[in-house]
Amino acid sequence: MDPRPIGVFDSGVGGLTVVRAIIDLMPREQVVYFGDTARGPYGPLERDAVRTYASEISHYLVAQGVKLLVVACNSASSAGLDLVRAEHPDRPIIEVIEPAVRAAVKVTRNRRVGVIGTALTIASGAYERALATTHENVTMLGRACPRFVEFVERGETAGPEIIGLAREYLTPLVAEDIDTLILGCTHYPLLTGVLHYVMGHDVALISSAEETAKDVFAELAARDGFRSGPEPRHRFVSSGDPATFQALGARFLGPEIGTVEERSLGPSDDVRRAV
Amino acid sequence: MDPRPIGVFDSGVGGLTVVRAIIDLMPREQVVYFGDTARGPYGPLERDAVRTYASEISHYLVAQGVKLLVVACNSASSAGLDLVRAEHPDRPIIEVIEPAVRAAVKVTRNRRVGVIGTALTIASGAYERALATTHENVTMLGRACPRFVEFVERGETAGPEIIGLAREYLTPLVAEDIDTLILGCTHYPLLTGVLHYVMGHDVALISSAEETAKDVFAELAARDGFRSGPEPRHRFVSSGDPATFQALGARFLGPEIGTVEERSLGPSDDVRRAV
Repeated sequence: MDPRPIGVFDSGVGGLTVVRAIIDLMPREQVVYFGDTARGPYGPLERDAVRTYASEISHYLVAQGVKLLVVACNSASSAGLDLVRAEHPDRPIIEVIEPAVRAAVKVTRNRRVGVIGTALTIASGAYERALATTHENVTMLGRACPRFVEFVERGETAGPEIIGLAREYLTPLVAEDIDTLILGCTHYPLLTGVLHYVMGHDVALISSAEETAKDVFAELAARDGFRSGPEPRHRFVSSGDPATFQALGARFLGPEIGTVEERSLGPSDDVRRAV
Repeated sequence: MDPRPIGVFDSGVGGLTVVRAIIDLMPREQVVYFGDTARGPYGPLERDAVRTYASEISHYLVAQGVKLLVVACNSASSAGLDLVRAEHPDRPIIEVIEPAVRAAVKVTRNRRVGVIGTALTIASGAYERALATTHENVTMLGRACPRFVEFVERGETAGPEIIGLAREYLTPLVAEDIDTLILGCTHYPLLTGVLHYVMGHDVALISSAEETAKDVFAELAARDGFRSGPEPRHRFVSSGDPATFQALGARFLGPEIGTVEERSLGPSDDVRRAV
């Protein structure tokens, strides 16, 4: 038994799909989420800046007493995971890329796996690097889907427009005969319907949010570290405007979003206001 | 465009995992859910009674103006799907067994698929019948997990007790070398963490709730039948105590459960009270 909360962070609200999956699988667990909306998205930033931010946020979450840390952000994981792990050797740290890649290499039958993500994630080669560590003979085909995020944030995850856009992005992957597709962006689990419709029944979809939550479960199970007891009270902290975070966050998490605290990290480490 | 709601019914609250998946994929859709908690679970009842109930509830939901009907109940589907389809030839009707079986035969590599469910679902042979219609050369192994439902309804989906119980139930399926496992009960998506932990990374889990929601998406996409417009207001109707339904339902759906109306079907078709 371990009553301490689970810390999760992302450069914005996307990591809330990971929180959703964690709450679905482990409803007694308590989450502290940090969304760095004032400085994110991290994709366009210098690698050193992202390392600094990932380190700052991890220190903040560890100071909140978390038992486990989830880096629910492709950019932060790619740029700063080694640093965060080195700075907190006593804390299990789980990220979003490796669980999805591991699931995909298990599921694929024809050894051809696609991965979709933002332009920067795809260009970073992070999924190919994770694939290389599995030593599996699998071909990976990446495809950037730059406009998906704006559709998800508008709540437009069904209808002719998003179907048309998905066809445009995914037709090359269909032509490449992949049988497994990794959703390499925390926004994309909300597009499961349209992705399945466009890719067809023969293509298995792998959600990094769900695979990450399964890894959190396994980590806590292995150390008998689940929380029990009364209804959890989750905390949501944003470095940017809490009202915007709350409105957007509700699309990803549902009404559990509750109140959102605002906090800047770095020089002035104070809580400013909460909604 | 089609602003009408989607109708979903089950003998109890389990079908709310299907609602959760529908809302996740199609957040603009509006749902009317009927949970027949006063008469359910249907498993132990006579087939004819279940047919009558499925017919009554379908008439009720069609009278609410639904554009599509989801039979989110294994027993009702098995006993009464043909009747419901015959009575509403103008309405698409989706159930939970066939979408999961179709996904499983696509995903399996070694052609050995497990299915878990309540004792009655497993004894009914409904999944084997659905498999037969695919004409795929796949072996299916069923396993009843009678006590899972009570753990899910208590919210005990993580921790040593449920892990021990899952080991007891699933060890025979692990020994049978299945590589794909169908969650053949609408309660089980909430056990994804423990099932994955016990079955291991090599076994793909197929959630009937999620596969059913994907089918709803495809059906609406094919007829340009999505809803757009303002935030949906879902309706939840229970034939039994609405307070119990609401408390239990929140575990399955989250806080979106909102108010619950009480209504008996059959002779006195009146709304009695709402919480």
